[in-house]
Amino acid sequence: MSAPAPVSDPLAAYRITEAPYYRPCSGEVALYQHAYAHRLPLILKGPTGCGKTRFVEYMAWKLGRPLVTLACNEDMTAADLVGRWLLDADGTRWHDGPLTLAARHGAICYLDEVVEARQDTTVVIHPLTDARRMLPLDRKGELVHAHPDFQLVVSYNPGYQSAAKDMKPSTRQRFAALEFDYPDATVETEIVAHEAGIDAALAAQLVGVAQGSRALRQQGLDEGISTRMLIYAGILIRDGVAPRDSCEMTLTRALTDDPDLLAALRQLVDAHFP
Amino acid sequence: MSAPAPVSDPLAAYRITEAPYYRPCSGEVALYQHAYAHRLPLILKGPTGCGKTRFVEYMAWKLGRPLVTLACNEDMTAADLVGRWLLDADGTRWHDGPLTLAARHGAICYLDEVVEARQDTTVVIHPLTDARRMLPLDRKGELVHAHPDFQLVVSYNPGYQSAAKDMKPSTRQRFAALEFDYPDATVETEIVAHEAGIDAALAAQLVGVAQGSRALRQQGLDEGISTRMLIYAGILIRDGVAPRDSCEMTLTRALTDDPDLLAALRQLVDAHFP
Amino acid sequence: MSAPAPVSDPLAAYRITEAPYYRPCSGEVALYQHAYAHRLPLILKGPTGCGKTRFVEYMAWKLGRPLVTLACNEDMTAADLVGRWLLDADGTRWHDGPLTLAARHGAICYLDEVVEARQDTTVVIHPLTDARRMLPLDRKGELVHAHPDFQLVVSYNPGYQSAAKDMKPSTRQRFAALEFDYPDATVETEIVAHEAGIDAALAAQLVGVAQGSRALRQQGLDEGISTRMLIYAGILIRDGVAPRDSCEMTLTRALTDDPDLLAALRQLVDAHFP
Amino acid sequence: MSAPAPVSDPLAAYRITEAPYYRPCSGEVALYQHAYAHRLPLILKGPTGCGKTRFVEYMAWKLGRPLVTLACNEDMTAADLVGRWLLDADGTRWHDGPLTLAARHGAICYLDEVVEARQDTTVVIHPLTDARRMLPLDRKGELVHAHPDFQLVVSYNPGYQSAAKDMKPSTRQRFAALEFDYPDATVETEIVAHEAGIDAALAAQLVGVAQGSRALRQQGLDEGISTRMLIYAGILIRDGVAPRDSCEMTLTRALTDDPDLLAALRQLVDAHFP
Amino acid sequence: MSAPAPVSDPLAAYRITEAPYYRPCSGEVALYQHAYAHRLPLILKGPTGCGKTRFVEYMAWKLGRPLVTLACNEDMTAADLVGRWLLDADGTRWHDGPLTLAARHGAICYLDEVVEARQDTTVVIHPLTDARRMLPLDRKGELVHAHPDFQLVVSYNPGYQSAAKDMKPSTRQRFAALEFDYPDATVETEIVAHEAGIDAALAAQLVGVAQGSRALRQQGLDEGISTRMLIYAGILIRDGVAPRDSCEMTLTRALTDDPDLLAALRQLVDAHFP
Amino acid sequence: MSAPAPVSDPLAAYRITEAPYYRPCSGEVALYQHAYAHRLPLILKGPTGCGKTRFVEYMAWKLGRPLVTLACNEDMTAADLVGRWLLDADGTRWHDGPLTLAARHGAICYLDEVVEARQDTTVVIHPLTDARRMLPLDRKGELVHAHPDFQLVVSYNPGYQSAAKDMKPSTRQRFAALEFDYPDATVETEIVAHEAGIDAALAAQLVGVAQGSRALRQQGLDEGISTRMLIYAGILIRDGVAPRDSCEMTLTRALTDDPDLLAALRQLVDAHFP
Repeated sequence: MSAPAPVSDPLAAYRITEAPYYRPCSGEVALYQHAYAHRLPLILKGPTGCGKTRFVEYMAWKLGRPLVTLACNEDMTAADLVGRWLLDADGTRWHDGPLTLAARHGAICYLDEVVEARQDTTVVIHPLTDARRMLPLDRKGELVHAHPDFQLVVSYNPGYQSAAKDMKPSTRQRFAALEFDYPDATVETEIVAHEAGIDAALAAQLVGVAQGSRALRQQGLDEGISTRMLIYAGILIRDGVAPRDSCEMTLTRALTDDPDLLAALRQLVDAHFP
Repeated sequence: MSAPAPVSDPLAAYRITEAPYYRPCSGEVALYQHAYAHRLPLILKGPTGCGKTRFVEYMAWKLGRPLVTLACNEDMTAADLVGRWLLDADGTRWHDGPLTLAARHGAICYLDEVVEARQDTTVVIHPLTDARRMLPLDRKGELVHAHPDFQLVVSYNPGYQSAAKDMKPSTRQRFAALEFDYPDATVETEIVAHEAGIDAALAAQLVGVAQGSRALRQQGLDEGISTRMLIYAGILIRDGVAPRDSCEMTLTRALTDDPDLLAALRQLVDAHFP
Repeated sequence: MSAPAPVSDPLAAYRITEAPYYRPCSGEVALYQHAYAHRLPLILKGPTGCGKTRFVEYMAWKLGRPLVTLACNEDMTAADLVGRWLLDADGTRWHDGPLTLAARHGAICYLDEVVEARQDTTVVIHPLTDARRMLPLDRKGELVHAHPDFQLVVSYNPGYQSAAKDMKPSTRQRFAALEFDYPDATVETEIVAHEAGIDAALAAQLVGVAQGSRALRQQGLDEGISTRMLIYAGILIRDGVAPRDSCEMTLTRALTDDPDLLAALRQLVDAHFP
Repeated sequence: MSAPAPVSDPLAAYRITEAPYYRPCSGEVALYQHAYAHRLPLILKGPTGCGKTRFVEYMAWKLGRPLVTLACNEDMTAADLVGRWLLDADGTRWHDGPLTLAARHGAICYLDEVVEARQDTTVVIHPLTDARRMLPLDRKGELVHAHPDFQLVVSYNPGYQSAAKDMKPSTRQRFAALEFDYPDATVETEIVAHEAGIDAALAAQLVGVAQGSRALRQQGLDEGISTRMLIYAGILIRDGVAPRDSCEMTLTRALTDDPDLLAALRQLVDAHFP
Repeated sequence: MSAPAPVSDPLAAYRITEAPYYRPCSGEVALYQHAYAHRLPLILKGPTGCGKTRFVEYMAWKLGRPLVTLACNEDMTAADLVGRWLLDADGTRWHDGPLTLAARHGAICYLDEVVEARQDTTVVIHPLTDARRMLPLDRKGELVHAHPDFQLVVSYNPGYQSAAKDMKPSTRQRFAALEFDYPDATVETEIVAHEAGIDAALAAQLVGVAQGSRALRQQGLDEGISTRMLIYAGILIRDGVAPRDSCEMTLTRALTDDPDLLAALRQLVDAHFP
Repeated sequence: MSAPAPVSDPLAAYRITEAPYYRPCSGEVALYQHAYAHRLPLILKGPTGCGKTRFVEYMAWKLGRPLVTLACNEDMTAADLVGRWLLDADGTRWHDGPLTLAARHGAICYLDEVVEARQDTTVVIHPLTDARRMLPLDRKGELVHAHPDFQLVVSYNPGYQSAAKDMKPSTRQRFAALEFDYPDATVETEIVAHEAGIDAALAAQLVGVAQGSRALRQQGLDEGISTRMLIYAGILIRDGVAPRDSCEMTLTRALTDDPDLLAALRQLVDAHFP
C-alpha cells in the first residue's frame, strides 16, 4: 500500500500516473503553463473545496512533473520544510525535507494553505523564489541550487483568514497569482454528475442548494457548501439514501452547528427537494 | 492483561470480539453503513455521555473492522497522529502513529473530541479525507496510500465548545455528519435498566432526574446528567446504597460545585425519590 | 531508605503495611467500599488538609490494594502519566508511567489535586473511566486493559479554584463524588489530641482557633487553619514552646502575610489562649 | 546541483563567480567600498524587492569576497547563527553556524530582514561589531577572532515594521547605514527591459503602473509593486500572454486581496494599457 | 577549589565546617531547634539581605547537618529538584536532584526564594511535607522515604511579591513560619562593625542611612538598604575611599535609577556624613 | 584566528595582552581597584556606546586578570551560564559554562546588558555574590567555591529599559555600582581624534553633532549619537568621503527611521558642517 522512495528515483512516489479528473473553467491551464515555462512561483487563491488541489495535481500530471504536497500548519518549522539531522548507527545523517527534495530533484512543490504556517517559517522560501533559486541548508552547511524543473506553488483561502494570518508583503511579492472560485452552475453540475455518478437533473438540484448556501456567507456562514460536499450528497442518494436525509448528513449538519444557519440551510434543501 | 500487537496482524489488539451493547435510536446504523460503503469521513456530534463512542465501537464490530481510538488533546502533535523516529540499537527506527497504523492496515480511526486538538494538528488528516486518500509522512519521506478499508471518524460536543475551539471550515467540509442526543425516556430507561441491572421502575425514576437536569443547562449547568451517570447511580442502589445517597454521590456532587445548581439538582432527586 | 520496585512485584513499594490513623466521620468508608466494588472512578472534594489523602491511604490499606499517588501539576504531560521510551545500552526501552503501572498491575491510582493538571493531560484517563477500562499507549502501540483491581481516584479543592482550573464536564461526568470537610469540633479535637500527643483540653483550645479562622474565609483568607496545622501547633506546645509562640509560628504567620488577617488571627489566638 | 563545501575551502560554495546584473543608482557602490575598507558593519534599508540583496551580491562579487546569506526569522536561535554540537559516531562534534563560518574564514555575512529575528538573538553579533571583532562560542569554550576580510551586513524594510520589530538601539548603533528606494523611472525602465527581455516602451508602461501603485501606500497598501514583479509581468507578456492578463496575474492579484485596492490597481493597469 | 561529592559520603560537599558568623535577634534559634526536633517544614519570611540565608547556614552548622541550597527560579522544573536520567556509556543512568539527595541521605534542604519557582513545580514537595515524608520519583519508578534527619526549609520575601507569585494555600499550610526583619540599630551596628572591620561610630552612621532608606519604601523604593550593603560601604571606607564616594557607590546608585529616590538617598547620606 | 583553550591554562584565550585604549574620566579606575581588592560585585550603568565594555577590558588588563564576557539575552538559560552535560564517545561529559569557568579558575566575569537576561536566569549568581562566593552546579552535583581572583561585573543601560526589564531588588542589592556617561566635550574630542585618526578640529565638529543629538532624547530619540558612531564618521571622512555623506551614513540614518528625527539630526549636521 505504501510507496517508499527508491534511491534510484527519490521522487518516484510523487509521480502522478493517472490523469486526475479536472474540468478547466477559464484560461487557468494556459496561464499556469506560461508561469511554469519561466518557473514563476505561483499563488492559487480561492475558497475551500473549489478545486485548487485538484488543479495542481492535474497540471503536474500534464507537465509530467512529480508533485510534492505539504499541508501547512502552525507547528511546521523550517526544519520540517528543509530537513534535519537524524541519528543513525553511524552517528547523525542528513534527511532532506520535502522542500529540499523537490528543489534538489526537480518536482513541483505545493504548500497547501500556506498562511497556516507562521510567517517566520515561510521566509525560508525566499532565496528559492527570486533570481537566486537556491536553498541554503544552514544546519548542514550546504547551498542547494534548485533543479531546472523545480517550481513552488502555494495556495490559500482569502475568505476567512484573519489579518493575523496573512502572507508578509515581502513573501507575497515573490509570486504571481491565479484566482479560483466555485465553477458556474453548468460546469459544477457536470462535475457533480461525473464524480458522484448521478444524472444531471439531480446534480443540478444539489448545485442549486450549494449556490443558495454561498449567499449565506453574508449572514455569518464561514464557507458555503463546496463542490466536494455535493459529490458526497450525490453518492449517498445514488446509494439509496433519501435525498433529504443525504443532504442533512452531508450538507446541512456538516456545515454548521448554529441553529439559525441550520434552519436557513434546511429551507434551501426543502426548496430544491420539494 | 495487555495486548502487544504481533507483527503478523498489527491491528489484532484493535479488533472488537464481543458485540458491544448498543440500542439504536433512529436510522443512524443504516446511515453509517452507507457512509462506510463509500468510506466517507464522518463527524459524530452530540453531548457528553450520550453514546457516541459506544456507537462507533458497535459499528466497528458490526462491520468487522478494527477500531483505533484517540482521545484528542491540545498537546497532541502531528507526530502523535502520524508517527516518529525512535532510537534503536541500530540507530533510528520509524514508529507508525495510530492514524498511520489505521490508514496503512485498514482500520476505522476514531478521533474522540477532535476539537480538543489544535486546528493545526488536524490539518494532517486533509489528504486522507479527499479523493487522494493518502497520508504523507514528511519526516520519513513516504506517501502512505490508505488501505481500502480505512475510514476516519471524529466526534465532538457542540454544546459547550467555545468559538476558539472549533473545526476549521476547510477541515469540517471534508466530513458528513451524524447528530446524537440523549435517547428518549423509554429508550434511556431500557438502557439504564439493562446496564445497571435494575428494574424498569427504578430506571425510570433515575431517567426523570436526568431529564430535569438537562433543562438546567439554560441556568448555567455545563452539561446535564448523562446516561452513564444514571447507570452508576443504578448500580449503587442495586448494591444496597440508599437511593438519595447514591444520587448525591453519582449525580448531584459529581456534576457541579455551584451551591445554587446543587440545590436545584437535589430538588430534582427529592421529586423523583420522595 | 528507598524502595526500588522488584521485578517480581512491581507494586511492592506502593503497598501500605501499617494501618494509617483515620477517624471516620460519616458513611464515607462504606460508600467508598461500594464504589470500589464496582470500580467506579471517584472524586474526593474538600478543603486543604482536611484528610482526603489520609482517607485514600486508609481505604487502600483496608482493601489491601497498593496505592500509586501523583501530585498533579501544570507541567505534567500525558507521558508523565502513561510512560515513555528511555534510552538504554540496547536502544530505547519502554518505561510505564504511574497510571499505566497502576492500571496494568491492579493498584488504586490517586491523582491528588487533579485540577492542577491541564485539562488536556487529563483526557488520557477517559478510556480508563468508562466501560472500556483500557489505556491506549499510542507511542508504544499497545492497548493496556485495566487489571480487575484497578481503580482511579482523584481529589481537588473546590474552594479556591478559579474557573480556568476546573475539570472539563466530559471528564467530570466519569466520576462519582464524595465530599469532605474539616471534622466537627469533637472529632477534630480527638484527632489533634491523638496525633500531637496532647490532652483533650489543649486540643479543644486549638480547634477553637481553627474554627474561628475558617469563618475568616469570607474576609479574604484563602483557606482556614487545617487540622494538620493544629497538630503542628500541639506538637510544639507539648515540646515546651509557649502556646502563643507556637500558634504564631504554626498557625498565624504560616497562613498569611496580610496585616489585617494577621491581626484577626492573633485575636483568635488571644481569645482561646487568654 | 548542490555544492557541499570541501574541507580545503570551507567558503567555496559561497563564492560568486558570475557578475550579478546590478544598475548603480547614486554613489552607493563607492560608499560601500569605503565602509568595507574599514570593515564597518552596514545596514541596508529599503522597501521589498528594490534590490538590496542584489546589491550585496554585486558588491561581494566586485570585492571578490564570499557571501554567506541568512534569511532571518523569529525561530532563529543564537545557535542557528553561531553553531552547535552535533552527535557523531565518535560523540559530539562542533558544527560552525553561518555567522561563525563567515567570521572564521573571512566572508561577508548578510543577515536579510534582520528585524525578523528576535532582538535577543541578534545580541550575539555585538562583540563582532565593535573594536573587539570577536565571537565567543560559549557552548564550545572558544573565542573566534574575526578574519581580517570579514564584514557584517544586515538589511531591513523600515516601511511596514511595527515598533515591536525594531533593532535595539544598542545593536543599531554598531552599524553605518545605506538607504535604498525603487530606482527612478528611467533606471527602472532600463532594468525591467533588460531583465524581462522586452522593449523599453513596454517596460515604461509597466513602470508607470508600479509608480502609481506605490502612491497607494497612503491608502492602505502594505507595499507597492516592486521591480521584481514588473519583470515577472514583462516575461509573461513577451511569452504571449495578453498584457492585462499578465498584469492581473503578476501585479494586481499578487499584491492584495482587498476589493477596493484591487479596483484601484486595475484602474492603474487600464490607464497604462488602454 | 571545587568539591566533587565522593561516593562514600554523598553530602560531604554540603557540610559546614566553620561556624558562620550569626548574631541572634530574639528566640529564633530555639524555635528552629524545636521545629527541627520534629522535622517540621519551615518558612523563613523577611526582606532581602536581612540574614535568612546566614541563619539557616548557622542552624545547619549548629545542628551538625549538611545543607543543600537551591536558588529557585521560574525555569526550575520538577526534574531540577528531583533528578533525571542522564545518558551514559552504558545507557541511561539516574541522577538524584538536590531535593532527592537531601531527602535520601538526611540533609537540610533550603529552597531560597521559593515563590520564584512556579507553583506547579513546588507541588513535588507535598508528599515530603506531610506525615508520609516520602518523595515519589515517578520517572524512575522509586518511592524515596525521607531520611530521619531530613528537613525542608524555604524562604521568601513577602514585601515586593506580586499576588501572582505566592505560595498556593495547599503548599503553604504544610509549613510553620519564622519571620525576620532587619536587626535593630544596636545589633545591626554591631554586625556591620564586625563584618566590615570598622569602628562602632562609623557603623552607626551607616546604619542611620539604612534606617532612613527603609522608610522610603512607602515612597516607591522596592527595598531599603540591607545590612549586606552597609558592610560593603564600610569595607570601602576602611580601605580609604571617602565616605560619601563609598555610600554613592555601594548604597545610593546600587539601590535605584530613579532620580527622585536617588536625591532622597543622597540627602540621607549627607545628613549622616555631614 | 581562533584560540581554543589549552588544558594547561583554561583561561588563556581570555587574557588581554595589549593595553586597550581607555581615557579615564573621573575616579572610576581607583574605585574599581578598591572594589576588586575586596572582590565586590560591580554594576556598570550608562548609555550605549559610552565605553563600559572598554573600561572593563582596560581594568582586566591593568589588574592582569583574564576577562570572560557574555552578551546577555532572553534565551540565555542558567545552563548557558553554568554549564551542561555533553554527549561523548564515552557517555556524557560535563562542560563548564563561562560563569563556572571564570569562578573556578579566577577570571573577571562580565555580563554585558544583564537586564536582557531573564530575572530567573540571573538568580544563579546569588550564591557567588554574597559571603558564600560559591556556585552550586545542581545538575552535576558539585559545589564550586570561587577562585580568590574571581570577580563578577555586570552592565546595563538605565536609559531605555522598561520596568519589565529590570534587575530584581534581591539581585541588585548584591552589587556596588559605578555610573558612566558620555565623556565631556574635551575628552570626547580627544578620543574621537585618536581613534579615527583625524585632527582635533574635525573631531570637535563631530562631537558637536553628538552633543546636540543627545538633547533630542527628550523628543523621542531612544539614544543619542555615541562616541563609537563619531569614530565611524571620522574614519570615513579621513578616507575621503564628504563630511555630510559620512554623517548621513554613520550618524543620521544609522540612528533612526523617523522622518522628524531624521530632519532634526540633519539640521545638526548642517549646523556643524556648514
